[in-house]
Amino acid sequence: MTTKITAHGAATPAQHLNPSKPHALEHITVVDFTRVLAGPTCTRMLADAGARIIKIERPGTGDDTRAMGPFTADGSSEYYRFANLGKESIALDLKEPGDLAVAKAMIAKADVVVENFRPGVMARLGLDPAELVREHPRLIVCSISGFGQYGPLHMQAAYDTVIQAISGIMDATGEPDGGPTRVGTSISDILGGVFGYCGIVTALTARERTGKGTTVDVAMLDATFSTMEQGLMDALGIHQRPHRIGNRHPSMAPFDTFGCADRLLAICVGNDRLFGVLVDTLGRPELAEDSRFATNVDRTNNQAELKHAMEEVLRTDKAAAWHERLEDAGVPVSLVLNVDDTRGLEHIKVRGMVKEVGGYQVPGNPIKFGAYNSMGTMIPSPELDDHGAALRAEFAPAPGDG
Amino acid sequence: MTTKITAHGAATPAQHLNPSKPHALEHITVVDFTRVLAGPTCTRMLADAGARIIKIERPGTGDDTRAMGPFTADGSSEYYRFANLGKESIALDLKEPGDLAVAKAMIAKADVVVENFRPGVMARLGLDPAELVREHPRLIVCSISGFGQYGPLHMQAAYDTVIQAISGIMDATGEPDGGPTRVGTSISDILGGVFGYCGIVTALTARERTGKGTTVDVAMLDATFSTMEQGLMDALGIHQRPHRIGNRHPSMAPFDTFGCADRLLAICVGNDRLFGVLVDTLGRPELAEDSRFATNVDRTNNQAELKHAMEEVLRTDKAAAWHERLEDAGVPVSLVLNVDDTRGLEHIKVRGMVKEVGGYQVPGNPIKFGAYNSMGTMIPSPELDDHGAALRAEFAPAPGDG
Repeated sequence: MTTKITAHGAATPAQHLNPSKPHALEHITVVDFTRVLAGPTCTRMLADAGARIIKIERPGTGDDTRAMGPFTADGSSEYYRFANLGKESIALDLKEPGDLAVAKAMIAKADVVVENFRPGVMARLGLDPAELVREHPRLIVCSISGFGQYGPLHMQAAYDTVIQAISGIMDATGEPDGGPTRVGTSISDILGGVFGYCGIVTALTARERTGKGTTVDVAMLDATFSTMEQGLMDALGIHQRPHRIGNRHPSMAPFDTFGCADRLLAICVGNDRLFGVLVDTLGRPELAEDSRFATNVDRTNNQAELKHAMEEVLRTDKAAAWHERLEDAGVPVSLVLNVDDTRGLEHIKVRGMVKEVGGYQVPGNPIKFGAYNSMGTMIPSPELDDHGAALRAEFAPAPGDG
Repeated sequence: MTTKITAHGAATPAQHLNPSKPHALEHITVVDFTRVLAGPTCTRMLADAGARIIKIERPGTGDDTRAMGPFTADGSSEYYRFANLGKESIALDLKEPGDLAVAKAMIAKADVVVENFRPGVMARLGLDPAELVREHPRLIVCSISGFGQYGPLHMQAAYDTVIQAISGIMDATGEPDGGPTRVGTSISDILGGVFGYCGIVTALTARERTGKGTTVDVAMLDATFSTMEQGLMDALGIHQRPHRIGNRHPSMAPFDTFGCADRLLAICVGNDRLFGVLVDTLGRPELAEDSRFATNVDRTNNQAELKHAMEEVLRTDKAAAWHERLEDAGVPVSLVLNVDDTRGLEHIKVRGMVKEVGGYQVPGNPIKFGAYNSMGTMIPSPELDDHGAALRAEFAPAPGDG
């Protein structure tokens, strides 16, 4: 790959990753009741933006993910480590009045509460989100769940795979002659967390104007459904039932993955000029004169024949060789990489997308500010109750509270 | 499916979807230079939160997606319609000094600028992001691109399929004996837009404290890479090369899709108690006594045998029947739905996830606030230059400007 290192505007590596810059949300305190992945993804993003995160965990076992693999040689969970950077941990038994009073004292001084229990659990603990906002009018309470806080399915148990299945994203993914395919990461959990972050920070911005807090209700199903772009264009717009189409684009061609001598290459041609460049580079300029491939509409209608013609040539050499030729010619192209290779790219390194925190490598922060710290948190994920004593001292309920 | 309609806390449908509530970001003005999908997704989210969006389009053709399918019977593009709700359109030729002066007059009064050109294009137009922030110290300028504003690959052409290929998400998706599989929606474009929104709203919150604007640099590659959860836990944490595992969970079983007499059913069992309930419901209680399936670790290690044993039973009846039995027993379960069926769910309807705007059905807003409007924008996507005359009058450059 070429190594153009010119930066544009303020966007130089030194400026973005300078750890001495202030954090955007360093004035914000979050009480974090979340577990597993969707909620902790949200509060990890808040930690990356510099907020103080107080994570409340169940005494004894803590967050479920502490017992979930993969585990490193020292027996600690990578799952927990990835999702809980930058947080303080306190073990509280919320069914015990003294511990609940500590949690309430934290909430009284906090800007944000985040939880991802099943609907109703917070209320049974005496921490109903709407009640909390009534009691603390500037507080923002975000609930992240599989199906949201209301609706016929809202009490259904939800895991990422359940939401991928019901949202339509699994049915949309895969080959036409294959089966519905799970996205190879817990995308519905993660989208729940990211949209939760969107809701919280939107409410923080609004609070500066209105002086008011609010509840926020984010469902993993709503979040995943809202990303179903082409499928929903078909279903809602032109009233056609969408179907799986493998790796190709529904309305552009050639725009797909293609077999070379050794492995797949993604090639994306969005207009006639680039198609001319492509077929010249492949040594098949006559394809540009073929009436089946004259326009993008023609190429899309005849994409199978076009793919066959292209792969006849592509299979004569390795993907890396074609990659270099096509990239030099200006055709959008990429090898299909295993993420173990992606993480080794110089590009990923200079953008701080892998960082070392507490002796372990973890993913970096994808939001880069000119004016604020963009490394994200450098504080390791805590051991259970690491900050318990200090937090109990700081938030000792006043006599008569709780 | 069951129809429990109790709502918790403030989260009732009437409260969330009440259109008379104020919008969270109704005080924010955005000048929107974005095209196609990633950038317009970001500014559509800003429109849903109530911001004023002024979309600048190329005279004559406008946003590329106006010419991209799918098209409705009247010839209008669903692609354009979905991504541009709630925006005002003005056609400006930014290479023409008079039009550029209009754009600059808008920027002078705006809170936010969003663009998704290739790096360097804004600077060549005289609109370099860092310069704009220097000139207007409270301005937030967000650049969304495939690879970001710096790094060895930053000038490479990027489409969603290119980023899915290089990020590792395509290689992680699919069956072990199949090929890398594109996620069946343009997830990298959408993640670029959503993380752009995160960056903008974070910067708006910070501005209230610091008084300062900032540039924001979001790369679709960084955004997608950061969601690679299990793959990165393997690659960065335990130093194993991740591989495709189909629809199953890497460390829980049974947690997969399973064949029934007619179609797939997703079943997610995360603990021993639920496994007991599952095998009782399947009429195979002896499986809970089988040493191969005693613990979650055993079940994960022997997941292929377990799947075989489960499918022997499941294939004796239809998925809908098993769905009802398992759901009634409390096992997390879902049919694998086509999004055309998902959009018909009563749950999706009562949560406002499909709405009618300007006579067309479009996806709803997945962020629901107690205190603010959560329907999102109800203003249709504009025709090209619909608001041109009004905007030119409102933002007429003062004599001597530009």
